[in-house]
Amino acid sequence: MAAEQVLIGGKWRDAEHNETFQAENPATKQALAEEYPISTWSDLDQALTAAAGAFQEMRQMAVEKLELFLNRFAELLDENKQAICELANTESGLPVSPRLLEVEMPRTINQLRLAAAASVDGTWRAATIDTKSGIRSYYAGIGPVAVFGPNNFPLAFSGASGGDFAAAIAAGNPVIVKANPAQPGTTRELAKLAHQAATESGLPPAAVQLIYHMSNEDGLKFVADHRLGAIGFTGSKLAGLKLKEAADKVGKPIYLEMSSVNPVVILPGALAERGEALVGEFQTSCLMAAGQFCTNPGLIILLDDDQSAKFIEGAKTGFAAAPSGTLLTKGVEAGLTQNLKVLIDAGADVEASGSGEGSSQGYTCPNTLLSTTAEKFLSNSEAFQTEAFGNCSLIVKAKNLAEVCEVIDSLEGNLTGTIYSDTAGGDDPAYDQVAHHLRPKVGRLINDKMPTGVAVSPAMNHGGPFPATGHPGFTAVGIPASIHRFAALQSFDNVRPNRLPRELRDENPTGKTWRFVDGAWTQGHIG
Amino acid sequence: MAAEQVLIGGKWRDAEHNETFQAENPATKQALAEEYPISTWSDLDQALTAAAGAFQEMRQMAVEKLELFLNRFAELLDENKQAICELANTESGLPVSPRLLEVEMPRTINQLRLAAAASVDGTWRAATIDTKSGIRSYYAGIGPVAVFGPNNFPLAFSGASGGDFAAAIAAGNPVIVKANPAQPGTTRELAKLAHQAATESGLPPAAVQLIYHMSNEDGLKFVADHRLGAIGFTGSKLAGLKLKEAADKVGKPIYLEMSSVNPVVILPGALAERGEALVGEFQTSCLMAAGQFCTNPGLIILLDDDQSAKFIEGAKTGFAAAPSGTLLTKGVEAGLTQNLKVLIDAGADVEASGSGEGSSQGYTCPNTLLSTTAEKFLSNSEAFQTEAFGNCSLIVKAKNLAEVCEVIDSLEGNLTGTIYSDTAGGDDPAYDQVAHHLRPKVGRLINDKMPTGVAVSPAMNHGGPFPATGHPGFTAVGIPASIHRFAALQSFDNVRPNRLPRELRDENPTGKTWRFVDGAWTQGHIG
Repeated sequence: MAAEQVLIGGKWRDAEHNETFQAENPATKQALAEEYPISTWSDLDQALTAAAGAFQEMRQMAVEKLELFLNRFAELLDENKQAICELANTESGLPVSPRLLEVEMPRTINQLRLAAAASVDGTWRAATIDTKSGIRSYYAGIGPVAVFGPNNFPLAFSGASGGDFAAAIAAGNPVIVKANPAQPGTTRELAKLAHQAATESGLPPAAVQLIYHMSNEDGLKFVADHRLGAIGFTGSKLAGLKLKEAADKVGKPIYLEMSSVNPVVILPGALAERGEALVGEFQTSCLMAAGQFCTNPGLIILLDDDQSAKFIEGAKTGFAAAPSGTLLTKGVEAGLTQNLKVLIDAGADVEASGSGEGSSQGYTCPNTLLSTTAEKFLSNSEAFQTEAFGNCSLIVKAKNLAEVCEVIDSLEGNLTGTIYSDTAGGDDPAYDQVAHHLRPKVGRLINDKMPTGVAVSPAMNHGGPFPATGHPGFTAVGIPASIHRFAALQSFDNVRPNRLPRELRDENPTGKTWRFVDGAWTQGHIG
Repeated sequence: MAAEQVLIGGKWRDAEHNETFQAENPATKQALAEEYPISTWSDLDQALTAAAGAFQEMRQMAVEKLELFLNRFAELLDENKQAICELANTESGLPVSPRLLEVEMPRTINQLRLAAAASVDGTWRAATIDTKSGIRSYYAGIGPVAVFGPNNFPLAFSGASGGDFAAAIAAGNPVIVKANPAQPGTTRELAKLAHQAATESGLPPAAVQLIYHMSNEDGLKFVADHRLGAIGFTGSKLAGLKLKEAADKVGKPIYLEMSSVNPVVILPGALAERGEALVGEFQTSCLMAAGQFCTNPGLIILLDDDQSAKFIEGAKTGFAAAPSGTLLTKGVEAGLTQNLKVLIDAGADVEASGSGEGSSQGYTCPNTLLSTTAEKFLSNSEAFQTEAFGNCSLIVKAKNLAEVCEVIDSLEGNLTGTIYSDTAGGDDPAYDQVAHHLRPKVGRLINDKMPTGVAVSPAMNHGGPFPATGHPGFTAVGIPASIHRFAALQSFDNVRPNRLPRELRDENPTGKTWRFVDGAWTQGHIG
């Protein structure tokens, strides 16, 4: 059987490759039929050259074409959602319904439509006009963007349709999609629709390209290539840090979302008030989709008292009783098993390790609840904050609030941090103390709900301090902010009015674009 | 003689050191009397701990104290400007008047006052409120900032008073000043006034600290330290890239301004129209302060025709006749001499090499004008775009416009790019072509004036693609944008109203802070 074709320079064609790979159905551990090529450098080289050419065209193109493209792509996704979700289910084990069809696909479509609106509205550019000095600046596309998508969101974070893709295109950049090797078929179908939409909308042929896989060595060369503008990566810390090193060396912006244990502090008043409900919230959040979320609550911090003991008892029962879900890949199963071992070797106690029920044929791991004391945690906090990606969580029992804060202080950067407190205000002094320590450690501070929901909102920060991401100033979710990752700041000094980009001319380009003119935000024209 | 004291933890005290260094007067090559310590790790360690403590205080402090501090510091600078400028002159060779006293000091004071206003106004935080989802975000201080200042602006870019300092403080971060070793006395005097202002304004004692020097090894350890939030560095590419590698490895944001040849394209119509005036503009810009500006016009690109020959002839005469200025340090003299050799070895022709006149006792180099053809340039563009920091420029003669664009395409990232064209419009088609190639290579695109002026404007981009800086999305000059470098994005999800920072509450914190509320910028209250 011939290997599947890559999309390079606007053409679906055979890849230059020596090796192929197959995806698996994680629910059956059976290899799927199609063979996908591991491209050699020649494919990457051609994709980079084509992308560089496409970028030159896109820089001069009307932004309305970006809008047209993103909306048309959204429409095509909607028309083809059933088939895509079924394929994504086969490659990921995630349920078609409600997860893929009713949650992730609508989110994906919504993100593309928001990006479409942002691309033409132009407010994301933060056009800044200083009429006195004759200097004007804005954000412009950074150049071709390579997007490495993760395995846990085959649609909403896919390199071919997800948040990084939408943001990169909205800024006017071509995208080179690097498929997640667990979901090459889904990515191919998404790329087909993206390519169709691009063609129909008059985008350059190489605006969207697709590579399935490359050697590690070529990957490092690829992200450091001078033709590339930036890289978006969501995945493991191990791979992310290697790519980061290669990109950093040549000053190439790379945005990474890598790892997070998402600490959740539950204060005593909250436990007293609604302990049982909290057990349910925790269990649902931690075991949903087998816990395979970047913002899975992987670290629960409690005061060591009777109420906490009750909470742990409840969670133990729940973890043991709930069926354990299908894991996304063999690699996720191996990683989870290994990282649980790291935590247990460090001294964590096993409170629950499933019931043995659940996925019998697929990749799986018993729902695992671990616990330890703050004292033990602090004695080896590096090991204890190992991310065990999946249906697992570690509960840390602290003697007092000071210990809670010490545990927080010992954490690396995280995407989220959550504090539960009582509604009457009894926990408020403790809240203030904990929040002060937690705030600088996380991108998003949450009250009274689990971190797994990541709303698509302009105020969202799906980001955080290293090593949750590579830079604490950027978010991967939320338009317009997420677009800034794929943009360069450009200033125009004494440039003649007719030579300015339309967003920086006296006339407001849309009549409603927000611009920062002489120190005030306005939608007006100048003069 | 005892070595000068460092400022650590709010106290001027003897440094922990084994070695000392002295500065020189570059106009006489005489060592200055004072001895300055090269701190050992112990000093750095204590400064980092003190800074981390100060940051915890500053996070909870009223922003009015930042405003008070920055304005008071500006006031103290104004009161002490004569003495500081005289000392800066001794350590840098830059003239007291007009350069230091009438240009650089007022700029420095102005930047501090703008930062003061920004700190309390809060518009820089880009507070974003999504009332529907209950998510709110803003930029907050990133943590202690280390500022490594350059040698060419002893005041306006000094670690103790310059743009990075002002931006870092405006965001609520303590600063650890690393003095430029060429100007330790000036930096000490600036830090004294900063410390006095900090004390009077109620800032934590370690809000401003001063280290004169450290070993290279300690420097790498310092920028990678977990207690540091970010680093601002202006200086050589060699040192910058080493610090960048160390900081990148641990995901520490480091903002670098490193090198730039600042290409200037002069189109034929402009030469025909005002060739003689352009010779004057070029010469003034290139030789002012012995050309020691980040935005010095180091690369002039012309079409090879009679008018260009006349331009070159005029510039030759001018370069030869003008006195050559004093160079900042022995190192600048050595670097300039060496890099001129690189250019000449690559094949550049020497059009002018001073008259021998100028500084007779100090560090100096003849005003040097080089030329080459585009063909030669393209055959070894890496060598030909070597930055020869100082009173030197390379003219590239292209056969046609296509070659001009090829030369531009071969350039690395630069801070600025300039195009001169005629006023009647004859150059317009050529302009469009050149600008298309030049725009993505530079942070600031300029028309019809030399790049050496860097206005303090919100629309300024004193930044650009690598290796001009480390990231093309940030500027080192221009408030509020420059503040974002020293800030982290923080989101608050479902956080109770009374727990929100004041900038994110329903009530507008100042009644005039601009906030992005439900997709519109407003100064209003919510609800």
